[in-house]
Amino acid sequence: MLARRTEAPFAAALLALVASMGQVAAAHATPAAAAACGACHGAAGEGNTAAGFPRLAGLPAAYQMEQLAAFADGTRQSAVMEPLARALGLHDRAQLADYYAAIVPKAPRAAAPRTGLDDRLALRGRWSEEIPACVQCHGDNGGGIGAGFPPLAAQPAAYLAAQLQAWQKGTRRGDSLGLMERIAGKLSDADVSAVADYFAAVPAGAAPLTASPGAAEPTAAPTESRPESASGAVQPGAFTPADVPIPDDDFGRAVKLGRAIFDDPGRYARGYTGNDLRCTSCHLDEGRRVGSAPMWAAYVSYPAYRAKEGHVLTFAERVQGCFRYSMNGRPPPLGDPVLVALESYSYWMARGAPLDPSIAGRGYVKPPKPALAPDRARGAVVYAQRCALCHGESGEGRRANDGSPGFPALWGADSYNWGAGMVNVSNAAAFIKSNMPFSLGGTLTDQEAWDVAQFVDSHERPQDPRYTGSVAGTRVRFHDKDNSMYGQRVDGYLLGSKSVPPGHRPRERVAASAG
Amino acid sequence: MLARRTEAPFAAALLALVASMGQVAAAHATPAAAAACGACHGAAGEGNTAAGFPRLAGLPAAYQMEQLAAFADGTRQSAVMEPLARALGLHDRAQLADYYAAIVPKAPRAAAPRTGLDDRLALRGRWSEEIPACVQCHGDNGGGIGAGFPPLAAQPAAYLAAQLQAWQKGTRRGDSLGLMERIAGKLSDADVSAVADYFAAVPAGAAPLTASPGAAEPTAAPTESRPESASGAVQPGAFTPADVPIPDDDFGRAVKLGRAIFDDPGRYARGYTGNDLRCTSCHLDEGRRVGSAPMWAAYVSYPAYRAKEGHVLTFAERVQGCFRYSMNGRPPPLGDPVLVALESYSYWMARGAPLDPSIAGRGYVKPPKPALAPDRARGAVVYAQRCALCHGESGEGRRANDGSPGFPALWGADSYNWGAGMVNVSNAAAFIKSNMPFSLGGTLTDQEAWDVAQFVDSHERPQDPRYTGSVAGTRVRFHDKDNSMYGQRVDGYLLGSKSVPPGHRPRERVAASAG
Repeated sequence: MLARRTEAPFAAALLALVASMGQVAAAHATPAAAAACGACHGAAGEGNTAAGFPRLAGLPAAYQMEQLAAFADGTRQSAVMEPLARALGLHDRAQLADYYAAIVPKAPRAAAPRTGLDDRLALRGRWSEEIPACVQCHGDNGGGIGAGFPPLAAQPAAYLAAQLQAWQKGTRRGDSLGLMERIAGKLSDADVSAVADYFAAVPAGAAPLTASPGAAEPTAAPTESRPESASGAVQPGAFTPADVPIPDDDFGRAVKLGRAIFDDPGRYARGYTGNDLRCTSCHLDEGRRVGSAPMWAAYVSYPAYRAKEGHVLTFAERVQGCFRYSMNGRPPPLGDPVLVALESYSYWMARGAPLDPSIAGRGYVKPPKPALAPDRARGAVVYAQRCALCHGESGEGRRANDGSPGFPALWGADSYNWGAGMVNVSNAAAFIKSNMPFSLGGTLTDQEAWDVAQFVDSHERPQDPRYTGSVAGTRVRFHDKDNSMYGQRVDGYLLGSKSVPPGHRPRERVAASAG
Repeated sequence: MLARRTEAPFAAALLALVASMGQVAAAHATPAAAAACGACHGAAGEGNTAAGFPRLAGLPAAYQMEQLAAFADGTRQSAVMEPLARALGLHDRAQLADYYAAIVPKAPRAAAPRTGLDDRLALRGRWSEEIPACVQCHGDNGGGIGAGFPPLAAQPAAYLAAQLQAWQKGTRRGDSLGLMERIAGKLSDADVSAVADYFAAVPAGAAPLTASPGAAEPTAAPTESRPESASGAVQPGAFTPADVPIPDDDFGRAVKLGRAIFDDPGRYARGYTGNDLRCTSCHLDEGRRVGSAPMWAAYVSYPAYRAKEGHVLTFAERVQGCFRYSMNGRPPPLGDPVLVALESYSYWMARGAPLDPSIAGRGYVKPPKPALAPDRARGAVVYAQRCALCHGESGEGRRANDGSPGFPALWGADSYNWGAGMVNVSNAAAFIKSNMPFSLGGTLTDQEAWDVAQFVDSHERPQDPRYTGSVAGTRVRFHDKDNSMYGQRVDGYLLGSKSVPPGHRPRERVAASAG
């Protein structure tokens, strides 16, 4: 970074440049002010690694607009950028933002060797302190998601570190849910360096960062949820998966494949998924987290009878249900390597746990019944304030900027179908209370959790695969309880009546993210 | 029973009858002496329940011959029977034995209600004291197996109790392996009554006694092997399955079905077995016993990589291997109720055990390498003395007298095939050392165990289902180790060269035993 004492005269020079720009500006051409930006950010907005100036090329225009506004009003402090941003009118900012957004970042470099880099925080997080993996909000490839979650890949390490420090110091603010302040505040200097170095080494537009399942384990497996965490998921005495590396042997490879599927089923269980949901969407911390149906607890609880199926299910058959309902897909056949890998991964996590269907931590932590009956209208307000940033205004979810899956859709054609467990409002309320907003579990009131669950589950979604031929018949057979909105009328509309039949497939991912 | 003081004059009267028999005797007719026998045992040898005189009708002739000889030489003491037996010449005895053996016992009565009867010893044994279930040697229906193991079903309770007491007191002896002395010596008076009452209530020729899987659990599940038992299977610290009743709910029904399959796969997994072997043949005490690959230990060890298959197997796939190799059958498809039930039963047994592939008690307890290389000739001597009684002179096993499966075949067309784990001589030696002779585990020396294992596994058996088209090729691919005799020459004969191809089905059971 430039030393602070050099910033003021430098900024003055740039301001002069900006002042001259009106003379050159023309629509769809290089904005005149870009010359000023280019002094630091490079002629093509490619940034300056050595100096720690970030890349602008390919950054979403809305994100750039937000940042310029933040510089202008001081919520993001920078001696250089503040006066520049203030000098730019709204139209100028928009021109610049569009200009840089349209520049395709340099072609992916040959993948830099990542050996020795600590990828734990970046790829897995540290859920014992409620720190999610960076990629969960910034995209599998660190390529960013929407305007809210900027790309990290291939930004200069010094820039990334400086931003984390800015969040820590409060010189960068304005994150609507307060996520980055909270997360950055928990990072040590070593953590900051590790994350910054890691993403700096990732080429923009690289293949997904999720570790190849065949790759050697660079570091130990991630740490587990600590039941004493501050979230709503507290369950004293719950089992804690061992924090040991997955062995690099035949069994370990199945475990790693299982984890890779768990993180990205659309890629590693291709053909079996029908939407963008991941196993980790409902089973946080890669299936470890108490309060989000941890897989180690499920593993030691099967075989078991389930009323939903009306017979005794093995663990593998239970997982088939996730594909069929939550992922609105096609269950891998029993014995398929996908199921074997998921079973191996779950077994691995559960090692040392006693076989016990009443193991502490199983399933969700049900919040108490709310004081007021769950209400969609109140839920809609909560949703807009706390959920829409990630899941979209219309519950449609968000793909990452490079087309890889981002935040899951909560309703509509790309969400879980009417047969899924989350259709049960009490399940959804339990999950939300413990885990939502993402990494801020426990911060909603019980009433808010119930209300927003009611709101989410009062929307249309793909048809129940058990559809009997009529919504009424399907409701009687499978949904005849208070907790399911299927077959109920909402503002005159009969839920289930326009459900997309099973077999819907999600939008294709873009090539960059396909493995 | 008759009071002892009445026996002497009664015997004298019978002796007079016997003395007169020469005058009437004619081949294939009722032997004259039968009139004397009939005084106590009934005109058709039906016995006398009230008096406690045993049924002779249908008893195997060889068994009757053995008993008459035992009465005559005093190894079986009876004031009434001793003088009578001594008075009968060998030809007379044979005539009587053939006569009674040929009488079909009275048609099965309507099954007596068994409620309230304690069937634990009869059907499950008490392996914590190395007491096997009665039915394991006397047949599923208590109908007896060969000359060595007489029918118990429908004999008078007083007679059965008196016999157990005679074994206890030593007034009945002559069991070649000393089994009954040892077992009876461990029974309490209550045990004796329970067993006697139980079998007295079973109609001769009844359907198999193995409890119907859907039936309510009359008593608690059987007790488990205690690691501190005197057998060779001692493994301190091994897990002990809980001794709690299987619940009478949907899951419990799957568990019970699994146990029923485990005890009698030919009946409850019909169509998937290719021989008479049962799961309990190799996994004693219904899968609980340390030293015979207990199922609870296997359950917590899968999924796991296995070199034999070359990939990671789930527990269900591992069990498929038992059907394919040890049972020389056809594996039930994954998800088949047979596999789900076996998995449920194993899970139920393992409840409370930690998931851990290195759990104490897993697999077999390998005996030390023997001082002398294992030797078939020495093994043949051991076999004749300690094994042939149950498994037959030619390793062919023994069906029960009513046609239901009895003792498993150890080689030949009805035994495990060349792909089974027991083909590995070290596995067989380990199993034998801990568990054989049945309920006398640990009584063979290590050398004897290795020798007899070598002997057993040096016989022809069904082809390896993985057969490549040539014995040599199959050996190279699957058997190229010291511990397999497949493809080796024994007295000039190439093992594997005349193996029956897979698909062989066992002799049909007789109708009486089919459920």
